[in-house]
Amino acid sequence: MDKLVASAEAAADLAGAVIRPLFRSALLVEAKGDASPVTEADRGAERALREHIARHHPDHGVIGEEYGPDRADAEWVWVLDPIDGTRAFVTGRPLFGTLIALLHRGRPVLGLIDQPATGERWIGVEGRRTIFRGPFGGAIGCRPCPELSTAELASTSPDIFPPGQDAGFMALRRAVRRTSWGGDCYIYGLIALGLLDVVVDATMKPWDWAALVPVVEGAGGRVTDHAGRPLTLESEGDVLAVGDPALLPACTSLLSV
Amino acid sequence: MDKLVASAEAAADLAGAVIRPLFRSALLVEAKGDASPVTEADRGAERALREHIARHHPDHGVIGEEYGPDRADAEWVWVLDPIDGTRAFVTGRPLFGTLIALLHRGRPVLGLIDQPATGERWIGVEGRRTIFRGPFGGAIGCRPCPELSTAELASTSPDIFPPGQDAGFMALRRAVRRTSWGGDCYIYGLIALGLLDVVVDATMKPWDWAALVPVVEGAGGRVTDHAGRPLTLESEGDVLAVGDPALLPACTSLLSV
Repeated sequence: MDKLVASAEAAADLAGAVIRPLFRSALLVEAKGDASPVTEADRGAERALREHIARHHPDHGVIGEEYGPDRADAEWVWVLDPIDGTRAFVTGRPLFGTLIALLHRGRPVLGLIDQPATGERWIGVEGRRTIFRGPFGGAIGCRPCPELSTAELASTSPDIFPPGQDAGFMALRRAVRRTSWGGDCYIYGLIALGLLDVVVDATMKPWDWAALVPVVEGAGGRVTDHAGRPLTLESEGDVLAVGDPALLPACTSLLSV
Repeated sequence: MDKLVASAEAAADLAGAVIRPLFRSALLVEAKGDASPVTEADRGAERALREHIARHHPDHGVIGEEYGPDRADAEWVWVLDPIDGTRAFVTGRPLFGTLIALLHRGRPVLGLIDQPATGERWIGVEGRRTIFRGPFGGAIGCRPCPELSTAELASTSPDIFPPGQDAGFMALRRAVRRTSWGGDCYIYGLIALGLLDVVVDATMKPWDWAALVPVVEGAGGRVTDHAGRPLTLESEGDVLAVGDPALLPACTSLLSV
């Protein structure tokens, strides 16, 4: 596993080297309303990741956001999101991330959240304590928060649910102490640092959530669907993360409204 | 004015040195739901700013978020927000900022947006081109965006308006290409870098907006109230920023719904 972690870190370094020069580039400023420069960063980074995996792990499968599945039925499968938080990337916010997960028989056993702009990196491995490095400080460890009324909730956007299907989310927003917005994968990293208590997402793909599971759970938290069940490749994309597992019943009960 | 800019930069350095050790500190993690560690960072930073101003500009007035007004009727008045984005600070998001403005007879002639965590700094001076420095790249200059349908809108939260008073804001959200969330003063900085087109805020105090005006306007944009009028110390706190002044009539027309 240590060799796989080192390999995932080397892959993240390669992706970051592709992404950083395009962040806030003149290309992006000019292309307002046009997805092409983002696509270029996304695709270039995913190609770098796939080449690394093909060279070092020729027996492994790959599922990536940009280039789809390749031997997705292999025992070991890498799941890749070169730029999680495309909207943040496009608008110059530095908190987008590169997500790299390794699945063993469908279960995420290794997850890496890398922030190419800020230089922060979370490394989660099933059964181990999550590792975090970065220039702004912070220490791994979800904090106790048994009551929703004292919880800090975060979500990328109030529009993650289709109109009319957000009653449960609204109920959860009313039940917590405060809600803050924006962040994509970054806010899952903040749960692992004990700075947020609950994150809710919807319509996520496996490359959006697979890397988050070992990171958050290796810090003491839980990542499930909105009913509290483990996420699988067959899940529908509703994601709930809590720092204190004691919060799970109250969250799933409200989200099922 | 160059001496005043150098003084504002020295003040920002002092505030950052107070704030950085408290960001993501164990104190903050433990104090979930308790405002005291934030208050400590806020107050300590504002004291550092006020001591600097008292020493170097003994004839100037000061208005600060934490310690109130002191000779607010002076010809020159500094307007200070030691931590803009308290919620971001509390939840470990690095995009909170320190805002330092200098008013001459009530008009903001100098504005500084400093990001103590990321090391980014915007310096705006009335009649001059805004200056930007930081580790993630980006160049000063608002971008053309004459049509709302291609505009990137941003706001700190969907809850900036009281319930039932957000019809105009909802109309604007429907009219733009996309909306992204979170950011406080940082998203005004992104307008000045040509990466966002419209930012809307409400119930802002002078220390929330005074520094933003010279930064955005020195990059080619405009900062007004929701009716398109210049902001004054008597304004009610509704703030609208556009990168392309041609967007102003469409925005004010929707926000008056």
